[in-house]
Amino acid sequence: MQIAILLYEGLTALDAVGPYEVLALLPGARVQFVAREPGPKRADSGFLSLVADYALADVPRPDIVLVPGSSSSTGDAMRDHATLDWLRAAHETTRWTTSVCSGALVLASAGLLAGKRAATHWAAAQYLAQFGAEYAAERFVEEGRVITAAGVSAGIDMALHLAARVAGEEEAQVIQLLTEYDPQPPFDAGSMRKATPEVVEHAKRRMAELASRVKAQAS
Amino acid sequence: MQIAILLYEGLTALDAVGPYEVLALLPGARVQFVAREPGPKRADSGFLSLVADYALADVPRPDIVLVPGSSSSTGDAMRDHATLDWLRAAHETTRWTTSVCSGALVLASAGLLAGKRAATHWAAAQYLAQFGAEYAAERFVEEGRVITAAGVSAGIDMALHLAARVAGEEEAQVIQLLTEYDPQPPFDAGSMRKATPEVVEHAKRRMAELASRVKAQAS
Repeated sequence: MQIAILLYEGLTALDAVGPYEVLALLPGARVQFVAREPGPKRADSGFLSLVADYALADVPRPDIVLVPGSSSSTGDAMRDHATLDWLRAAHETTRWTTSVCSGALVLASAGLLAGKRAATHWAAAQYLAQFGAEYAAERFVEEGRVITAAGVSAGIDMALHLAARVAGEEEAQVIQLLTEYDPQPPFDAGSMRKATPEVVEHAKRRMAELASRVKAQAS
Repeated sequence: MQIAILLYEGLTALDAVGPYEVLALLPGARVQFVAREPGPKRADSGFLSLVADYALADVPRPDIVLVPGSSSSTGDAMRDHATLDWLRAAHETTRWTTSVCSGALVLASAGLLAGKRAATHWAAAQYLAQFGAEYAAERFVEEGRVITAAGVSAGIDMALHLAARVAGEEEAQVIQLLTEYDPQPPFDAGSMRKATPEVVEHAKRRMAELASRVKAQAS
């Protein structure tokens, strides 16, 4: 079971590391972090680098592909032809092609979500339609061999679902216990439906600030 | 707000990256990944490296310290005198000293949990008593300036609690919405109380296998 997780400059680290921690515990799994060029990739916060051990060309036929999102550079990944070509070619033979957060837009840009319902981060939802995909405000959405997850932390839930699809419910539950995934968030503000209007407005301002900070750094 | 997250060879990546993703969104936060020697640190799966940008000596007085756990090398960290000395010195002036998973045993080994209740991974719980700490089967435990979290994924819940302590509940809820942390695990097997006896036995075997695999690699 060969699992390729895409890394790129500016990714959101938890989008990749949440599912990794679950999928790496699948019996017989081999997880490979891939990027256009191998080496350390800086996360969108600027505070952390994750290392891609492999180039895209090193992992042409993974069983599972996972594409994380970014609060800063999803657009760069969406326009990177080497990445899109690799995704399209890998998808021909994957068992599962998956995304977390705005990683759905990268799958969409590769043409892999046309005609499909898809989950993504709430701040990225408006962009799905131009690729022929329909936003679903769900934790994750399985359509054929494609599974898309909502923002950031949703990748953990999606990966547990995927673990059950691959290895059965008992193995998935064992992984849930090994990672002690018994979530007890101290607040209940994790979705647009649950957060107060004040928190929603504040979060939208923060998203805009994150995007503008990134543009300032890039210019 | 200077936040130091300890990295070391064999850490469990999600223990560090879950809280990082939350704490990095605190207004004015600067997160610094520190290690005895800077550079890439391999996670316990063998599949991923996280990069420590800083040496311990570069970050002597952080406001917050976070120590992740490991399924393979907690013992090494518990015996590393440079790490323990740094933890003890940093703790004198931190606002919060925190751990995730078996990282609690590293705090305990530094003498910082004596007389305290503490959370940790269920597989590490039995070792707390020898350091004068008492295991609490809770998601996280706040005792004075010390907050310990249960296994792996519990660091996310703990970090949201910590975000509220540092910046107030509205900021914490904004971070919860930005990370779309509205957990919906497809199963309910994330704690020793909730998993079936079969899943518990299976998970215990897997923990033993993980530990023996590590010993085989080391010998």
